[in-house]
Amino acid sequence: MNSILIKNVLLNGQISNIKIEENLFTAIGNHALDTHSDIIIDGTDKAILPPFYNTHTHSPMTLLRGYADDLPLDVWLNEYIWPFEAKLKEDDIYLGSRLAIVEMIKSGTVFFNDMYWHQGQTLRAAQEMGIRAAIGITTIQKDAEGISNQVEEIEKMEWDNNLIQITMAPHAIYTAGEMNYRCCCEIAKEKGWMLHTHIAETKKEFDECIKEHGCTPVEWLERIGVLDCRVIAAHAIYLTDNDMRILKTHNVTISHNPTSNMKLASGSFLTKEVMESGCTITLGTDGCSSNNNLDMREEMKLAAMKAKAQYGTEFLPASKIFEIATINGAKAFNINAGEIKEGKLADAILIDMNNERMVPCYDLLSNFVYAADSECIDTVICNGRILMQNRHIDGEEEIIAAVKNRYGSK
Amino acid sequence: MNSILIKNVLLNGQISNIKIEENLFTAIGNHALDTHSDIIIDGTDKAILPPFYNTHTHSPMTLLRGYADDLPLDVWLNEYIWPFEAKLKEDDIYLGSRLAIVEMIKSGTVFFNDMYWHQGQTLRAAQEMGIRAAIGITTIQKDAEGISNQVEEIEKMEWDNNLIQITMAPHAIYTAGEMNYRCCCEIAKEKGWMLHTHIAETKKEFDECIKEHGCTPVEWLERIGVLDCRVIAAHAIYLTDNDMRILKTHNVTISHNPTSNMKLASGSFLTKEVMESGCTITLGTDGCSSNNNLDMREEMKLAAMKAKAQYGTEFLPASKIFEIATINGAKAFNINAGEIKEGKLADAILIDMNNERMVPCYDLLSNFVYAADSECIDTVICNGRILMQNRHIDGEEEIIAAVKNRYGSK
Repeated sequence: MNSILIKNVLLNGQISNIKIEENLFTAIGNHALDTHSDIIIDGTDKAILPPFYNTHTHSPMTLLRGYADDLPLDVWLNEYIWPFEAKLKEDDIYLGSRLAIVEMIKSGTVFFNDMYWHQGQTLRAAQEMGIRAAIGITTIQKDAEGISNQVEEIEKMEWDNNLIQITMAPHAIYTAGEMNYRCCCEIAKEKGWMLHTHIAETKKEFDECIKEHGCTPVEWLERIGVLDCRVIAAHAIYLTDNDMRILKTHNVTISHNPTSNMKLASGSFLTKEVMESGCTITLGTDGCSSNNNLDMREEMKLAAMKAKAQYGTEFLPASKIFEIATINGAKAFNINAGEIKEGKLADAILIDMNNERMVPCYDLLSNFVYAADSECIDTVICNGRILMQNRHIDGEEEIIAAVKNRYGSK
Repeated sequence: MNSILIKNVLLNGQISNIKIEENLFTAIGNHALDTHSDIIIDGTDKAILPPFYNTHTHSPMTLLRGYADDLPLDVWLNEYIWPFEAKLKEDDIYLGSRLAIVEMIKSGTVFFNDMYWHQGQTLRAAQEMGIRAAIGITTIQKDAEGISNQVEEIEKMEWDNNLIQITMAPHAIYTAGEMNYRCCCEIAKEKGWMLHTHIAETKKEFDECIKEHGCTPVEWLERIGVLDCRVIAAHAIYLTDNDMRILKTHNVTISHNPTSNMKLASGSFLTKEVMESGCTITLGTDGCSSNNNLDMREEMKLAAMKAKAQYGTEFLPASKIFEIATINGAKAFNINAGEIKEGKLADAILIDMNNERMVPCYDLLSNFVYAADSECIDTVICNGRILMQNRHIDGEEEIIAAVKNRYGSK
């Protein structure tokens, strides 16, 4: 049995010793845990926190980082993003996913919910690098053609159920049609998978749905039965009060993507109203062409700043946005983690309390949300395995060299 | 003569060699610069960029980082910030300033425009640590009493004019009164110093000024002659069209502080309107109790995101906000820097192009503004002197240990 002992680490204001056996926290206390451990981590001057669960991204889009910015939305998509994407092959997707995973681990993320083409390559990268992922079988066509083949392709692969889950991921109502959504929904229910989709991201989408279907995007998805799946809905900016009631009734989880919403000028997410409606909110970075990184710490700060500007200084305190970025994401994907507690899956980050941004420390979460950056994260543990220590990931140099070698000029 | 040779560094898309002699860039080219150099820096896989000029902060407030957040503005100020500040002694200010300077250097900043009590201690810290600063003789009283003493106190000190300049810094129109402003203005003109003040930060300030003086804050400052100084105005959120005309006429520089404006829910800065009025905009982090770090890279991203949400995707491209955060700040303070050019003061940062956030690199400034974090900054040079290399600053551990030792619980 693999085991890790983290000694003398700050947990909830107390110096503690923490034992990990296989993929679980098995003992936590301020007494000595003198059982044998394969690995001992010195937690002196470090604090332990739950890591991030990024609930909406398109990981291979790291390859498009900085490829096109500051453009009108249609020029950006039609002249830059889509032509670039059309050229991406399976090995590009594999490499882009690996770069994304390096970046995510280095910024404290242990799970990502992904939607992209050639998703088998992202699955392979996540599995190999030991990070949790929900891999979306991504469908963008109007009809249901080819979807069952996509499912078969993925099901031929092998993966560790402790790390990987599959979702059906019809892209959005303006790309995927009713037959596509219905088919994805049926498969998701049959397999027990979640359904991941963009909902109500732009005013244009909302207005066109009203025009075409006589109802809002959320009402339309309810009407065709999609909300009977376990749904994770990205963006969800344009919501009526009735939409929020519907989302709550169907236990839809919302992935809030504040940076992308601002960079693409999509609109303001109704954080307060959605929270008051009782819907669960989680946090996502979206892909690297509308952010342009995968840094959940930065995303928390931006979400909090935006919400305070919208609703006042007291709204969305540090502890709340931290919960949204961590345990809410884990719960949404049925991952028994997001808390440092005995019996929970051993996902954690260790924070360097000697970093200049972490001192003085009156309030650990305030410092982490509002002042830190990724350099404050020293160690990342996912499912009982150390993915990063002293800010180093095994093999990261090779991945970066491969990306530099293959991409880098327009 | 001290000299530095930076070899094989990326500058404007070309591999270059850069010579620094004393405090100036003296030769830049792609040919060999084979003169003797005291220090040789290998610039391989690094890019050189101008560093940041932070035009509004209260550096010792690092000591209040995370001390009070997410509270109503009056509770925050009256029950937390002001009682804490009242207890700060000169040696606290010295230590808080040193912590701030560590944080600024580590995030690529070589200049800060400061406003705080016991400003001689901030001057001392900046001078010792080799960073540029504009030290504000900060006045908060209604009348002019004691101001000339404050000036005398500072003038007893010794400083290097290459690094340090002094400003008169009446706090704001709701704290400092007319006689205070008039006195500061007179001294600033006589000494050739700039005048640094908060202007029109809150709706309350704007409304109360109208009620008390029958004019806007900007109009009032013009009326009492303050705008005849060289003024740097922080925040400037509540501006009428006429205010913008006045600010432009008097060549007032505006320090935009987007994080603070959002965290304190002060209001939305009119970036586009102010730019169209022809006023110069610079960037500032404000102090650590309303941000809560001094990271100008993060501040650039937030400024751009906020502005795009307000005005559309094309507004404030990466190159523009980078200019605002760098050369605009340098120019506002008559520092002949902010560009990597022969004859300019040798202020620069070296970017690690092997950091995962900098790859692929289609557009260096896009990556730096939208994707980087401070870990991408390897080296900081200020006035021809290396302040940080390999992300290490001499003496940083001692400063952090001293802060941890003295502060850290409420």
